[in-house]
Amino acid sequence: MQDSQQDLKFMEAAIRLSGEHMRANDGGPFGAVVVKNGEVIANGWNRVTSTNDPTAHAEVTAIRNACAKLNTFQLNGCVLYTSCEPCPMCLAAAYWARVDRIVFAATRHDAAKIGFDDDFLYHEIACALENRKIPTQQLSPDDAKKIFAEWDAKADKIRY
Amino acid sequence: MQDSQQDLKFMEAAIRLSGEHMRANDGGPFGAVVVKNGEVIANGWNRVTSTNDPTAHAEVTAIRNACAKLNTFQLNGCVLYTSCEPCPMCLAAAYWARVDRIVFAATRHDAAKIGFDDDFLYHEIACALENRKIPTQQLSPDDAKKIFAEWDAKADKIRY
Repeated sequence: MQDSQQDLKFMEAAIRLSGEHMRANDGGPFGAVVVKNGEVIANGWNRVTSTNDPTAHAEVTAIRNACAKLNTFQLNGCVLYTSCEPCPMCLAAAYWARVDRIVFAATRHDAAKIGFDDDFLYHEIACALENRKIPTQQLSPDDAKKIFAEWDAKADKIRY
Repeated sequence: MQDSQQDLKFMEAAIRLSGEHMRANDGGPFGAVVVKNGEVIANGWNRVTSTNDPTAHAEVTAIRNACAKLNTFQLNGCVLYTSCEPCPMCLAAAYWARVDRIVFAATRHDAAKIGFDDDFLYHEIACALENRKIPTQQLSPDDAKKIFAEWDAKADKIRY
């Protein structure tokens, strides 16, 4: 199967999840799959409202499931297919997991049109602290930096 | 107790967690607490490498724990104290949870100095798709948007 046909097949799977689990009232209309070596190794769908977990977006859930399956905290060699452009939380999660590639269907603007904050969040994250909607302040940096120095000197640390 | 003294006390708790759990080899040197009505309702610390979960940052963990405790997916009335400026994943998680306020100690630049990607991620998220380090492409938007339209028309949807 050609790459582009594979991509279509996996995207179809992600979109199918988005519909099925929205109808089951699991959460918002979002689905994702993680693929390695041409096989789906994990599914995810939005479960924010049904599990009381604001971080249970489709992509975060698929990434967590894929890592649990592979017993690793890094998804090198994997592709993330998601029915909607990842919000900044999910995009950063994909970076921390170090996936090889991301394929998405609808955009953050499409999500905004049906009432989701994705586009707003991209703006907030690019904002200077003092202009953010959630008031944010700094305190006690020197105490935290002492712990950072301890990490820096730690011989047996595991980087991620 | 004055607000500023309370802030110092809760930040001290977050920083203490960052050190204790780094030394226990749970993960990176990061800790967080969620506070409601002047009381710590949840703790979190980095557990990425010990639980094989790239999303198990201190703030995400504290937010998930706080939501589990309160049986809700929204943390209105809560303050997030974290030993380091939240990465984009954690910042967006705090927004999705709708905390009232964020207080942090070290910065994304301090984190970069000890080898973490936080600052890099802020740059990537502000980048146009075609300039991102992880190749990203769009596919099948119309199929995903059909599910979005279904959500839009869904009478019993729970917004978040």
